[in-house]
Amino acid sequence: MTIKAGIVGGTGYTGVELLRLLASHPQVELAAITSRSEEGMAVADMFPNLRGHVDLKFSAPDVAQLKQCDVVFFATPNGIAMTQVQELLDAGVKVIDLAADFRIKDIAVWEEWYGMKHACPGLVEEAVYGLPEINREAIRTARLVANPGCYPTAVTLGYLPLLEQGLIATEGLVADCKSGASGAGRGANVATLLCEIDSSFKAYATPGHRHLPEISEKLGLVAGERVGLTFVPHLLPMIRGIHATLYARLKDPSQDLQALYEQRYADEGFVDVLPAGSHPETRSVRGGNMCRIAVHRPRGGDTVVILSVIDNLVKGAAGQAVQNMNIMCGMDEKSGLDMIAVLP
Amino acid sequence: MTIKAGIVGGTGYTGVELLRLLASHPQVELAAITSRSEEGMAVADMFPNLRGHVDLKFSAPDVAQLKQCDVVFFATPNGIAMTQVQELLDAGVKVIDLAADFRIKDIAVWEEWYGMKHACPGLVEEAVYGLPEINREAIRTARLVANPGCYPTAVTLGYLPLLEQGLIATEGLVADCKSGASGAGRGANVATLLCEIDSSFKAYATPGHRHLPEISEKLGLVAGERVGLTFVPHLLPMIRGIHATLYARLKDPSQDLQALYEQRYADEGFVDVLPAGSHPETRSVRGGNMCRIAVHRPRGGDTVVILSVIDNLVKGAAGQAVQNMNIMCGMDEKSGLDMIAVLP
Amino acid sequence: MTIKAGIVGGTGYTGVELLRLLASHPQVELAAITSRSEEGMAVADMFPNLRGHVDLKFSAPDVAQLKQCDVVFFATPNGIAMTQVQELLDAGVKVIDLAADFRIKDIAVWEEWYGMKHACPGLVEEAVYGLPEINREAIRTARLVANPGCYPTAVTLGYLPLLEQGLIATEGLVADCKSGASGAGRGANVATLLCEIDSSFKAYATPGHRHLPEISEKLGLVAGERVGLTFVPHLLPMIRGIHATLYARLKDPSQDLQALYEQRYADEGFVDVLPAGSHPETRSVRGGNMCRIAVHRPRGGDTVVILSVIDNLVKGAAGQAVQNMNIMCGMDEKSGLDMIAVLP
Amino acid sequence: MTIKAGIVGGTGYTGVELLRLLASHPQVELAAITSRSEEGMAVADMFPNLRGHVDLKFSAPDVAQLKQCDVVFFATPNGIAMTQVQELLDAGVKVIDLAADFRIKDIAVWEEWYGMKHACPGLVEEAVYGLPEINREAIRTARLVANPGCYPTAVTLGYLPLLEQGLIATEGLVADCKSGASGAGRGANVATLLCEIDSSFKAYATPGHRHLPEISEKLGLVAGERVGLTFVPHLLPMIRGIHATLYARLKDPSQDLQALYEQRYADEGFVDVLPAGSHPETRSVRGGNMCRIAVHRPRGGDTVVILSVIDNLVKGAAGQAVQNMNIMCGMDEKSGLDMIAVLP
Repeated sequence: MTIKAGIVGGTGYTGVELLRLLASHPQVELAAITSRSEEGMAVADMFPNLRGHVDLKFSAPDVAQLKQCDVVFFATPNGIAMTQVQELLDAGVKVIDLAADFRIKDIAVWEEWYGMKHACPGLVEEAVYGLPEINREAIRTARLVANPGCYPTAVTLGYLPLLEQGLIATEGLVADCKSGASGAGRGANVATLLCEIDSSFKAYATPGHRHLPEISEKLGLVAGERVGLTFVPHLLPMIRGIHATLYARLKDPSQDLQALYEQRYADEGFVDVLPAGSHPETRSVRGGNMCRIAVHRPRGGDTVVILSVIDNLVKGAAGQAVQNMNIMCGMDEKSGLDMIAVLP
Repeated sequence: MTIKAGIVGGTGYTGVELLRLLASHPQVELAAITSRSEEGMAVADMFPNLRGHVDLKFSAPDVAQLKQCDVVFFATPNGIAMTQVQELLDAGVKVIDLAADFRIKDIAVWEEWYGMKHACPGLVEEAVYGLPEINREAIRTARLVANPGCYPTAVTLGYLPLLEQGLIATEGLVADCKSGASGAGRGANVATLLCEIDSSFKAYATPGHRHLPEISEKLGLVAGERVGLTFVPHLLPMIRGIHATLYARLKDPSQDLQALYEQRYADEGFVDVLPAGSHPETRSVRGGNMCRIAVHRPRGGDTVVILSVIDNLVKGAAGQAVQNMNIMCGMDEKSGLDMIAVLP
Repeated sequence: MTIKAGIVGGTGYTGVELLRLLASHPQVELAAITSRSEEGMAVADMFPNLRGHVDLKFSAPDVAQLKQCDVVFFATPNGIAMTQVQELLDAGVKVIDLAADFRIKDIAVWEEWYGMKHACPGLVEEAVYGLPEINREAIRTARLVANPGCYPTAVTLGYLPLLEQGLIATEGLVADCKSGASGAGRGANVATLLCEIDSSFKAYATPGHRHLPEISEKLGLVAGERVGLTFVPHLLPMIRGIHATLYARLKDPSQDLQALYEQRYADEGFVDVLPAGSHPETRSVRGGNMCRIAVHRPRGGDTVVILSVIDNLVKGAAGQAVQNMNIMCGMDEKSGLDMIAVLP
Repeated sequence: MTIKAGIVGGTGYTGVELLRLLASHPQVELAAITSRSEEGMAVADMFPNLRGHVDLKFSAPDVAQLKQCDVVFFATPNGIAMTQVQELLDAGVKVIDLAADFRIKDIAVWEEWYGMKHACPGLVEEAVYGLPEINREAIRTARLVANPGCYPTAVTLGYLPLLEQGLIATEGLVADCKSGASGAGRGANVATLLCEIDSSFKAYATPGHRHLPEISEKLGLVAGERVGLTFVPHLLPMIRGIHATLYARLKDPSQDLQALYEQRYADEGFVDVLPAGSHPETRSVRGGNMCRIAVHRPRGGDTVVILSVIDNLVKGAAGQAVQNMNIMCGMDEKSGLDMIAVLP
C-alpha cells in the first residue's frame, strides 16, 4: 500500500522533520508541499540534508492538488488549518493538524489563550486528540486528528499511569519542563539567535503558556476530575529535546510505581520505561519517535518524580503526526518510525 | 590595606576562578597556591587566561608557607580541609573552605552523606556558614568560614524571604535545579566529556544529592522548623550557571511578594530582585558575583514560583569566598567583586 | 541475503555508531560485540539510544565466536587489529579495520608515526584502502579493508578530481581542517571535557598529526607524484562533523571546475557536489554517510578553495565501514546507509 | 582625569560590550547612548548584565548632547558615521567609528565593497586606522579613528612581524579564519538562529568578504607592496572568539621566528606571543582585550603557520575602541582594559 501525502506550510522545523520522515517512509509518496512565501524554491535548497531524497519544490497553496492526497498535514501557524480543513475533509482527505487549532475541546478556553475567534468549532468536537497512547482506537477511524503539543506529549505520558489509577493528588502538580530552541520555530527573531540562547538558561512564560490549558484539559480527562497544575517551561541552549520533570504527591506511597509504569506501557512501541533509578537523557531520543520515562520516589517519601524525555520535533510533533497517519491509514504503527536515535 | 592570600589545591575550576578574582583584587597579594600533582608548573601554563596576571607556580603543600598568609582558601576535594585547618587557625590564619567539610552542623548527617568520619567535629560547631545574606555579622568575626555549595546558595537565597516571614508551607517544597557542567569539576571523567553532555539534558542524583541535607538544614534554620524538600538537580549542556526553579504553597496568597523580596534584599549588594514578570537568565550573571531573582504567582494561584540564578563558580563558589574574605578582613564587601557579567 | 557481523571493541563512539548502522541494516545480523572491560554489560545500558534495537551484551573477546561471522569490524585502538586479523582471515572471515593499522603502505612511515613495530607487514600490502571512490573494484574482492581516517576521507575526496587531472600544483597544498570532538574518542580525558572545549576553538597538532602521512600517501598515489601538504587540524566545540577547507594553486585557471567535480562524482552515491557558490554545512551530513563538496575560485584568481564536509563518525568511520562491507559482500552499496541527515 | 563618552547606536553586541567596558573604566563617565528605535528604554532592561552598573536610558540621537562629550563612539551600521562625524569633529569631539566607514583608504575600493557612495572622502584621508600596534603615534593625535574590523585585527597582528621584515612571499597568503556568531550582529535573522548554527560549522563568503580589501590594504602597507591573499571566513557554533590560521611561504626558513615574534611584541600590552609549540584557544581571551599568537613551522618546512586569537567583541571591536580612546585621550593605554579572560 502506498498513500499520497501533502504538507501545507513546510518551511519551519516541523516541516523539514516531517519531510525527513515521510521521505524515508516505505509506504508514502510525497505529493505536494505548499508555501506561499517560498513558491518555486526546491525544498532541498532550503534544507540541504534532503538533497537526493526530496525532489519537490514548494508550491503555491492549491486545494485542488491537496484534494488528491490521501492525507494532508498542516504544519502551519495556529489559526490557518481551521479555515481550510473542512474542504479537504469533504473531499475525503484525512487531515492531521500539527498546530493548535483542534487540540482544546473547550472553545472558550482556546479563544482566550490563542487570542482569536475559532473558525469551525464543530470540527473541534469531531477532532481526535492524537496521542495514540490514550486515543488509539479513536484515531483509527478519525478524519481529523489534532496532533498534540510537544510539552503536552511529554507531560501527559509522564503522569498518565498515576492519574489513570488515581494514585496521586490532583492538586499541586508541578511540571517543570525544559525545551530545546527548535520548539520556538524558524522565524527571524532576536530572542532565538544563537547569541541570545547559547551558554545560557532561563524560564519563560511562567505567568502562563498556551500549553497549560491543553495539558490541564487532557490530564483532567484522564483523571476524571479537574487537576491543579503549575507548568513552568524553560529554554535549553540546544536544538532538540524536551525534558519534563514532573512532581506529584502520592496518596499511597506503598504502590510499586516501577511495575505500574512498565505494565501500562508494555505494549506501547514508542514509550520506553527505563529501569528503576535511571535518568533519561534527551539525546537518547534525538531524531527518534520515542518517549523515555523514569520514575523516582526520592528518599522514599510521598513525592513522586517522573522524568520524561522526547525529541520535540519527533514524538513532540512530526513523528507523532506520522504515527497518527500510520494508525489512521491502517498501516503498521511503526512504519517509517523505527529509526535509532543519533548518539552522540 | 593589603592582605596575603593562599590557596590550597587550585587546579580545578573553582581554583582558576579564585585565581582570576584574587589576581584582580585591589587589596590582595596572592602568596601561594599549592598542588601536589602539579608542583612546579606555572599556573598560567595550565590556565592561559592568567598569563600576564599570575606569575605563581603551583608549589608543594607547605604549612609553614601557608601560615604566613592572612587568609587561606581550601579549593580541595571534600575531606581534605578538615585535616589541615586547625593548624592554620592556631597560627592566626583565617580559613575559608570551599569544599563541604564544615557546611553541615549535624555531624551524623554529614558523615552519612559524605561517607567518611569527620576529622574535627569541634570546628564544625565553630565554623560559620558563609552565606553573607543570613550570616554577615558572624562572618565578620569568624576564623573559619564554610563556603556554601552552589545549589544551596541559589536555593536558599530564593526561599529566604518567604521562609523568614513564614509565608509558605514548609512541606512539599520543590527545588528543580539546573547546573552547568563546571559544577562537576575538572577531573578526567567520561560522564562530563563534551560528547556526553553537549546538546543533551538530563536529571541526575534524583534519589539524593549531597546538597540536599545542606539545603534542608539551612532552610530549616531560617524557617525555625523542619522543611520537607524535594531537590532534583539537572545537568545543562553549558559551562557556567545555575538556575533554581523553586515551588512552594502560599499560606496567604494576598501578600505582595514582589515588595517583600525587594525590601528583603534592598541592602544586599549581590542579590538583585528583578521587576515583576521577569525571567532571569544565567548569562546575566556569567562571571559576576550576583544572584538575580524573580518571583511569580502563576495564574494568581496559591503556588509561588521563584526563579534564582547564579554563576556556580562565582556566587556559587569562588566569588562568594572572596565576599566572605572581604567581610572577615574588614574590607569593602564588594572589593574586587564589582565586575560586570559578560553578555553575550 | 543476510550476513553475520561481529565487532571487536565497541565501547567508543565509532562503536556505537557502527551498532546504530548495523542494527538498522536490512541484511545484517549482529552476532557479537566484544569488550574486555565491559564484558557482560548490555550494550543498550551503555548507549540508551539502542534500547529496543540491540539486545546484545558485550562479550569477552573470543576468536572462535568471531570466526563464525562473515565480517568482523575492528573498532579498537591502533595496534590491536594487526595482532588478530590473520587468524580471522585464515578462517575465511572478511575484516574491516576502523583503526590505522593497515592504512599506510609505507611501513617505516607507519612505525614512525604510530610509535610501534608493525606486527604483520605482509597484510599491510594485501590490505585495500577502503575509500570506495578510488578503490571500489579492489574492495569488492578484498579480504582485509583498511577503513580510512576521518580527515583523510574529507581531504582526499576534496582534492581528488583536481589531482587526478593534474590541474593543481602539488606543492604548497593547505588543508585547514576542523573536527567535532567525537573524533577524539570516548576516553576519560580532561582535554575533551565539555568545560574545556565548549564555546572555544583551537588548532592542535600543528607540528604533525598522524593523519598527515596517510593523506600525503593517498594524495601522492592519486597524483602520481609526491605532494607537499600542510595539514592543520582544529577542534570544534560540537560533537559531530568535519569541515575541510582545502587550498591549492591552479596551473590553468581557465578550467571549469564545477563541471569537473560534478562529472567526477556523478555516479557516486555518497559524494554530493553542491551548486556553484555553495557553502556546505556539517549539519547537512549529520548522521548520514554523505560527503558534500563545493568548489570556489575566489575573485577569479588562481587559488582554488574546496569545501568538503562529512560526519566524522559516519562517512569518516562507521558509515564508510558499512559501505565497504556492502561492497565486499556483494550487497547494494547503499544498503542500510540511505538515511537522511538530521537537521536541525 | 575623567572624560565624558557618548555612544551612537548601542543596541547591538558591540554596543553592550562597549557599555560593559566603559562602565567599568575608572576615568570615563558614560554621558549618552543613542538609539532611535529604543528611545526611552533603560539600557539595563535590554542588557540585564548591566543592571546596577549603567543607569542610562537610550536617547534619541541629539547632536547637541553628543557635542558635550569628549569622545563619541559610533557603534552604528556601516554608512551612518560618515554622515555625522564632521559636525562632531568641528565641535572638538574625538570620534571612534567601530563600523567600516573610515577603514579603507582607497575610496573606490570602499564604494565597490560597501555598495554606496562615500559621504566624506576627505575624512577618510584624515582618519587613522586604529590598530595601535602599527599606528600608536598617529592615534595619539588623531581626531578620528577608524576602529579595525575583527578579522583584520586578528590577521594583521598575525602576519605583521613577518611582513615588516620581508620574510615571506607576499603572494599565496592564506587566511583561514573562524568567528563566533556575535560577529554577525544582533539583528533578527534566520541565518543566525541557534537552530541554524549550533552543532554545525561552515564557511561563508568565500567569493569575497568585506574584510578582504581591508586586510589586503593594511598588509600591503606593512609589506610595502601589494599582497595576494585568499581569505575564507567560517562561522563557529559559539558566541565569542576569532581564530585566524595564517599560512605563508618563508623566503628563508633559517630565521628564528619565535624570537622575531617575541621581540616585535615585547612592549605590546595586548599581544601575547605564546611559547613555541603552543596552540592558543579562543577562550583564553574571552572577555579580554588580548590577542594571543603562536608561530609554527610544521615539519621544519618552508610553510609558516601563525595561529592568532582574539575576542571579536573586545580586541576585535569594543576593547580596541577603548584602547584607542585611552591613547587619544592621553590615558594609560591599559586603563579599564586589564580584566582577565573568563575561563572556563
